[in-house]
Amino acid sequence: MTEIQAWASHGPKQKLEPFSFNPGVLGAEEVEIVVEYCGLCHSDLSIINNDWAMTQYPVVPGHEVIGRVVAIGAQVKGVHLDQHVGVGWNSGSCMHCHQCMSGDNNLCATAQPTIVGHHGGFAERLRAHWAWVIPLPDKLDAASAGPLLCGGITVFSPLLTFDIKPTHHVGVVGIGGLGHMGLKFAKAWGCEVTAFSSHESKTAEAKSFGAHHVISSRDSTAMAQANSTLDMLIVTVNVALDWASLLQTLKPNGRLHIVGAVLEPMQIAAIDLIFGQKRVSGSPTGSSVDLATMLEFAARHDIRPQVEHFPMSRVNEALAHLASGNARYRIVLDADFA
Amino acid sequence: MTEIQAWASHGPKQKLEPFSFNPGVLGAEEVEIVVEYCGLCHSDLSIINNDWAMTQYPVVPGHEVIGRVVAIGAQVKGVHLDQHVGVGWNSGSCMHCHQCMSGDNNLCATAQPTIVGHHGGFAERLRAHWAWVIPLPDKLDAASAGPLLCGGITVFSPLLTFDIKPTHHVGVVGIGGLGHMGLKFAKAWGCEVTAFSSHESKTAEAKSFGAHHVISSRDSTAMAQANSTLDMLIVTVNVALDWASLLQTLKPNGRLHIVGAVLEPMQIAAIDLIFGQKRVSGSPTGSSVDLATMLEFAARHDIRPQVEHFPMSRVNEALAHLASGNARYRIVLDADFA
Repeated sequence: MTEIQAWASHGPKQKLEPFSFNPGVLGAEEVEIVVEYCGLCHSDLSIINNDWAMTQYPVVPGHEVIGRVVAIGAQVKGVHLDQHVGVGWNSGSCMHCHQCMSGDNNLCATAQPTIVGHHGGFAERLRAHWAWVIPLPDKLDAASAGPLLCGGITVFSPLLTFDIKPTHHVGVVGIGGLGHMGLKFAKAWGCEVTAFSSHESKTAEAKSFGAHHVISSRDSTAMAQANSTLDMLIVTVNVALDWASLLQTLKPNGRLHIVGAVLEPMQIAAIDLIFGQKRVSGSPTGSSVDLATMLEFAARHDIRPQVEHFPMSRVNEALAHLASGNARYRIVLDADFA
Repeated sequence: MTEIQAWASHGPKQKLEPFSFNPGVLGAEEVEIVVEYCGLCHSDLSIINNDWAMTQYPVVPGHEVIGRVVAIGAQVKGVHLDQHVGVGWNSGSCMHCHQCMSGDNNLCATAQPTIVGHHGGFAERLRAHWAWVIPLPDKLDAASAGPLLCGGITVFSPLLTFDIKPTHHVGVVGIGGLGHMGLKFAKAWGCEVTAFSSHESKTAEAKSFGAHHVISSRDSTAMAQANSTLDMLIVTVNVALDWASLLQTLKPNGRLHIVGAVLEPMQIAAIDLIFGQKRVSGSPTGSSVDLATMLEFAARHDIRPQVEHFPMSRVNEALAHLASGNARYRIVLDADFA
């Protein structure tokens, strides 16, 4: 195989620079993809900056990859040459542990993240285990689909995992990269949808994404009116919140579900869980099957992340735009290697 | 109706004194029971002492009642005169709200606790709405059954609610009034059972209650060996714990379930929930149907709380014994009114 051109960071807070590497022999269960588009996710920034103390430099970020299959190993199943595919947070898992064999391969203890100890999608080509290379439905808009593979599945998976029904009332806290997709999915799911945001400027957009109601989390009167109205509240932000008042928005048996990696421990009063038989939970992206299920659902309902495009060669500009908090709402890099 | 003799407290930390009251006309949906036995629960102490700022004095405690039906209102259903019955934490609920009509009448917003604004079971007779008067299976040992009605249902209900299977591994934190019943139920459920206790002296007894393994929560090596072994961990104690290390004992998709009213907020790291898709939840006692289901299960498996008996006239001595922490493991008062 020829060398792969890519963009890499060599240390925390360092700009990405052109980088090339030899990928070696293609593994028997590996697929190689030519990257067409790659979403830019907040966790790319966290990994570049080693916020989670797990980065291996040089790091080639990018884990919301859309591309075409150009090579397959001898034991690859379910994927064929020239197929249009996506790859998300994980690029591999053992496929023989209890979790993998139960369908929960996103919970495999040895799952291989696409951008930790593995070169990601800010590159000409990407490799992944066939189980994590998800065929794209024909009707899906490939140019905007990248962010579904990580951000999208993160907010979609809870609807599947926790048996949310179209009769349920679902809230989404934070109208950003994840939250705006959460509103679209919950609306298409048939639910009554409430958006919670601290930015009143986002009200009209939140409604355009599918919110029936938009509540300012700073408005204590509006928050009180929302008490006991929700079956599930998905929290997409990564800052400490008033957990007691959010738990109050839940009906009995309701669930507060965390997908934002809040660093400060959540303060949860036992009594706030006990009286209404309430639940707090978290989840990481989703399994291969959940990814395929999500893409089929997104194609049928024409759910597209709202994205801004940058050529991949302007990746540092795109990263600065993401870090500024001004991305509306997700960034996609278009591969432009020479 | 004639006056009812009872034991009541007239203020926080005050001893119980003989007390009598006129119960008025029996309501159309009410049942009156002659009390034979009444369990003594830690929440009786909390209510006597107004720890939850909801006590209405004079308070007649007692909400683990076993007795016989002596009067029924005109609209009573499902209960007949002379029937052997039990009453627990709740003595009534509206029976027409969404929760009641969904079978979750323990989550009714206007549920009537037996000992708050209502006179409880440290009395000759008790009244309750028919829906909360649970017929006892013939095979159940009435003299020890009282504690099932509150403490027992509190640890049994999570097994039902969260679809625990006999293939699951269940842990119980705290081997006390609730925990010892939790071990018995989980063992009879067919699960692998692990007890966590800070008292090594309880190891042999925990095994006799059904624990396959007993782990000292102070032994960090043993705690580490328990990592990723449990599907559900039921926490019955009401003191702050090392929540991070308890969450580590859970398998992916595992649940930490709280039934002890820990007053200090739990410190839960979002990341500890996200990576293994873990859950934290709480629940209050159980519904009428869950109570009946539990009693049938307890009768079939001959599950008896381990109790110490006191005559009800020695209730103050029994309360002091409970407060000392030396009760093994639950106290039942035998009614002895003249």
